[in-house]
Amino acid sequence: MFDQDLAQKAAENLKQVREKKPLIHNITNYVVMNYTANALLACGASPVMAHAAEEVEEMVSLAGALVLNIGTLSLPWIEAMLKAGKRANALKIPVILDPVGAGATRLRTDTAKRILEAISIQVIRGNASEILSLAEEGPETSTKGVDSVHTVDQATKTARLLAKDLKTTLAITGAVDLITDGERVCRVLNGHAMMSRITGTGCTATTMIAAFLAVDPDPLTAAATGLSYFGLAGEKASAGAAGPGSFQNALLDALYLINEEDLRTGAKIQT
Amino acid sequence: MFDQDLAQKAAENLKQVREKKPLIHNITNYVVMNYTANALLACGASPVMAHAAEEVEEMVSLAGALVLNIGTLSLPWIEAMLKAGKRANALKIPVILDPVGAGATRLRTDTAKRILEAISIQVIRGNASEILSLAEEGPETSTKGVDSVHTVDQATKTARLLAKDLKTTLAITGAVDLITDGERVCRVLNGHAMMSRITGTGCTATTMIAAFLAVDPDPLTAAATGLSYFGLAGEKASAGAAGPGSFQNALLDALYLINEEDLRTGAKIQT
Amino acid sequence: MFDQDLAQKAAENLKQVREKKPLIHNITNYVVMNYTANALLACGASPVMAHAAEEVEEMVSLAGALVLNIGTLSLPWIEAMLKAGKRANALKIPVILDPVGAGATRLRTDTAKRILEAISIQVIRGNASEILSLAEEGPETSTKGVDSVHTVDQATKTARLLAKDLKTTLAITGAVDLITDGERVCRVLNGHAMMSRITGTGCTATTMIAAFLAVDPDPLTAAATGLSYFGLAGEKASAGAAGPGSFQNALLDALYLINEEDLRTGAKIQT
Repeated sequence: MFDQDLAQKAAENLKQVREKKPLIHNITNYVVMNYTANALLACGASPVMAHAAEEVEEMVSLAGALVLNIGTLSLPWIEAMLKAGKRANALKIPVILDPVGAGATRLRTDTAKRILEAISIQVIRGNASEILSLAEEGPETSTKGVDSVHTVDQATKTARLLAKDLKTTLAITGAVDLITDGERVCRVLNGHAMMSRITGTGCTATTMIAAFLAVDPDPLTAAATGLSYFGLAGEKASAGAAGPGSFQNALLDALYLINEEDLRTGAKIQT
Repeated sequence: MFDQDLAQKAAENLKQVREKKPLIHNITNYVVMNYTANALLACGASPVMAHAAEEVEEMVSLAGALVLNIGTLSLPWIEAMLKAGKRANALKIPVILDPVGAGATRLRTDTAKRILEAISIQVIRGNASEILSLAEEGPETSTKGVDSVHTVDQATKTARLLAKDLKTTLAITGAVDLITDGERVCRVLNGHAMMSRITGTGCTATTMIAAFLAVDPDPLTAAATGLSYFGLAGEKASAGAAGPGSFQNALLDALYLINEEDLRTGAKIQT
Repeated sequence: MFDQDLAQKAAENLKQVREKKPLIHNITNYVVMNYTANALLACGASPVMAHAAEEVEEMVSLAGALVLNIGTLSLPWIEAMLKAGKRANALKIPVILDPVGAGATRLRTDTAKRILEAISIQVIRGNASEILSLAEEGPETSTKGVDSVHTVDQATKTARLLAKDLKTTLAITGAVDLITDGERVCRVLNGHAMMSRITGTGCTATTMIAAFLAVDPDPLTAAATGLSYFGLAGEKASAGAAGPGSFQNALLDALYLINEEDLRTGAKIQT
């Protein structure tokens, strides 16, 4: 039922992250900075947050991957994202974009599009409505904050076309995650409903993909295996959690405790 | 001893928040962004943080309530607060102000007053010294950081006059919370001493009121019932908490776990 | 084996912090603001975060110590740090610098040096590579994000010379912490490996030293005893923690629960 090669790949990627401890440079929103830094550490990677235009080019040159997350934008941060992204491109360091709230305001939609035009992005991770808002001639979408208003199923066909059009890999997360590079399609069935009851779950999924991208040159497998690992952690964390407060800590514990064998047997990736 | 109508109203408001999942737009301080977002999710509401002048008017138009919190100010954020507040007023979206540290520095006191002059505020939530610093000809007050130096009792008389003067509802939190719109007065006796040992408790109380304001058009009852719900969560969270670290998570769990019946029987509101 | 006078001093300093509840003014990075505020509250101190150039001079004048942490820099924050530091110097309020990531980018290295030139700093707390990057003619160092690339042992000799040169006290943290004012040298053996698996441990160590500096005029003993207290909390927190998520909360609990007697008997400071 589930792809064994990708389950094996997931375990291999996790091993690589823990051995190489890649530095992940995040230009991300204020809300999730602490949590995503802790998630990266729990995973085995090394986080750094830096947003000053004066230092992002130097910082990203030390990194194994760059995260651009537009969750709490302002104009100076947009300039820093563009600078860091261009340098990452020049150095062939993978870049992942999280278009938080794209579709909700013009600033967010326009900024996501501006980044996509200026920078080669290896993976875009968002919910269905955020991803759909990036289409040039998309359906009329309205985002209610950072919540998804489209189901993953509705988005599948559009996603393949959009991935081709944008020349990137899309990772559309929801109850089932859909990953496509325009040709290949994967679905990840790992995860737990409680993950939607804490803030920054999507942003953290993005950073997990970034850690896997730093060790896996194929954006499709990096995204699918990274999301599978994160979803499995959600499943394990839900076991003893009384509510979202205990769950968010159990999730960090699970990211830390999951070993290669857990992931090889627990990954639920379909192709 | 406690007002049964308001206990019933508290349960009704909680039910409404969970059914309508109102979007709460926060322009708030860096320290508490993650925690208040999680508290809003635990409560059943939907949080968004956005501060860019370029997007706050669009964002607030999607919201059920707007939170203005001056805990970590800078000039661009003040402009964004004014813009968002004016748009909220135009759209009749309720606005709540948290004057964190007003009285401690002129920037904070002046900004709180400037917001009050420019925007119709439905509720101001602060500790006694912060609220008193908003009086035009208040007593000489000095705030020690964000801690209260006046007791709720000292502040009661002044509060009624001040609420009338400022044409708003004041929610003055402390060991006992005092809520007044200048005419009516409520006291909320829910809460636990451990709540003062974690950062952002006041800011989180403010967001809980915001969630209730989004479903209850009466600022006095929204504030009293929101504080009662939050205080009850503090009581429940204190049960198994070894210290402030475990308490802060238990508090999120409690916000999530409390049901309407818990609140109807546990609310301690006096009129 | 361990210095009993300093163990006694540690207990005395903790007592003083809890009695005087000093206000600690932090101009610090976005990632750790919430956690360090909670750590200060758990310890018994009173935190405030404020970074606007328009208010930092007023705010610091209320404080018992000032923390300057360069973890997420931008130009306006650097100006605020300089303003606050100069006012602190004028008022003889102790200042502690945390040069997060110095050596990783020129902005960070240059900013740390600029602060050191403009302001009298009582304690600098960093890992070995950050501290070494502050040397005028230091060895060629490269920082991998915020991780240390030098052992404490390699740094000892350089540290004494550097402390003399910079006319400050250096607190170089790692598996063993080294503290020196150029003449005296202390080592702190408290701590636990899990402390390196959560974000902001170094920044939190810095704030604990700040709290102790607010009650102890000797930077060397304030730094050594503050680090011993924090390390002991790490040891206690590791007992029941399944992973970094539960550990970070247990650490706050431990900071709150440790009493003077625990610290007197548990401090592992060598002179």
